[in-house]
Amino acid sequence: MTKPILYTCRGSRGLRCTWAAEEAGVDVELKLLPFPPRFKAPEYLEINPLGTIPLLVDGDTHMTESCAIAHYFATRNGFTDLAIAPGEPDYAEYCDYTYHADATLTFPQTVFMRFALFEKDKGWEDAGQAYAKWFWKRLVKIEQRLEGREFLCADRLTVADICVGYALILARQVGLDEGVPENLKAYRERLTAREAYMRAVEREKAGAAAI
Amino acid sequence: MTKPILYTCRGSRGLRCTWAAEEAGVDVELKLLPFPPRFKAPEYLEINPLGTIPLLVDGDTHMTESCAIAHYFATRNGFTDLAIAPGEPDYAEYCDYTYHADATLTFPQTVFMRFALFEKDKGWEDAGQAYAKWFWKRLVKIEQRLEGREFLCADRLTVADICVGYALILARQVGLDEGVPENLKAYRERLTAREAYMRAVEREKAGAAAI
Repeated sequence: MTKPILYTCRGSRGLRCTWAAEEAGVDVELKLLPFPPRFKAPEYLEINPLGTIPLLVDGDTHMTESCAIAHYFATRNGFTDLAIAPGEPDYAEYCDYTYHADATLTFPQTVFMRFALFEKDKGWEDAGQAYAKWFWKRLVKIEQRLEGREFLCADRLTVADICVGYALILARQVGLDEGVPENLKAYRERLTAREAYMRAVEREKAGAAAI
Repeated sequence: MTKPILYTCRGSRGLRCTWAAEEAGVDVELKLLPFPPRFKAPEYLEINPLGTIPLLVDGDTHMTESCAIAHYFATRNGFTDLAIAPGEPDYAEYCDYTYHADATLTFPQTVFMRFALFEKDKGWEDAGQAYAKWFWKRLVKIEQRLEGREFLCADRLTVADICVGYALILARQVGLDEGVPENLKAYRERLTAREAYMRAVEREKAGAAAI
């Protein structure tokens, strides 16, 4: 079987996948692309017509959702401790947080980034700021969940932490930290101190330097 | 064990859950709320501080992500035919599409709805229209996938169809149909002709009438 290939941009939400691969011990080949690939690497559209990153190619399988790929790495040969199987404690919560991470947390971040950072000159900055507020308000669920807990589910690191943790990492990266509660900053510190996380960051850095 | 309770608004993305419950035969109590609940039913914030719908309360478990809840209904007592388990054909695709449905398809729809419909008078209508285009461009993945296929995965109806199908149902509902390809409209017709879908719509209608 050939090695799965992960196409991504450094520090993008594809970091969820690079990081999950390191935690899960999945041997994945990393292909770093310039951002945004749909303009700077148009040949990429031939393998991913969406033009989005990440993209995982695993044999005939193509996946484009960062949280799905992270969960897949933790389950592709059956459930590992990085995921939670039906019937185990916190199964429902595990499902909920892995979806919550992108659909509810990263989504408003991307609207903020587009209107308030990338396309600032279009006059929609206020519209972008409205989604910054939207993002901060949505943090209440994980803020409450992490009161007295080290991890979101089952007292261990799972893909739920990787998926949600990335949204907090992105918040710091794009200037959305003022509305992030202290306990979530501490949680982020714990996550980013992990060796697998640091290896993932280094791999993306090295891959980007080689473009 | 007490019955799970689903809080939702009629026709909202909670319809994914009402519909999945009907397909899966999960006996769920439906509580319809006026839209938007955070203003019209503020007591709801006590059980869901996010103020979003849907909310599933199943014993001590609280879930707020529509696609997660739909997947949960199909797996809470172990994997059923409505979901795809690790190792089965199309497992990766099943994961990918269930995440894609909300994180990539419904998210731009909600930005369009906010800026171009609900808050039209704020001067951000163009910003909303930009996300209408964004939504239409993102349909290419499912458009290609459904060429020659009746369902997204494994030649049978799964939660992936319910999750993605809802985004197409919402497109029609909010005036986003002009950019929806014909094969996706035909797919939506097939899905909405299902008895379980029609039962779900009727249940929500009856619940909303009783508010």
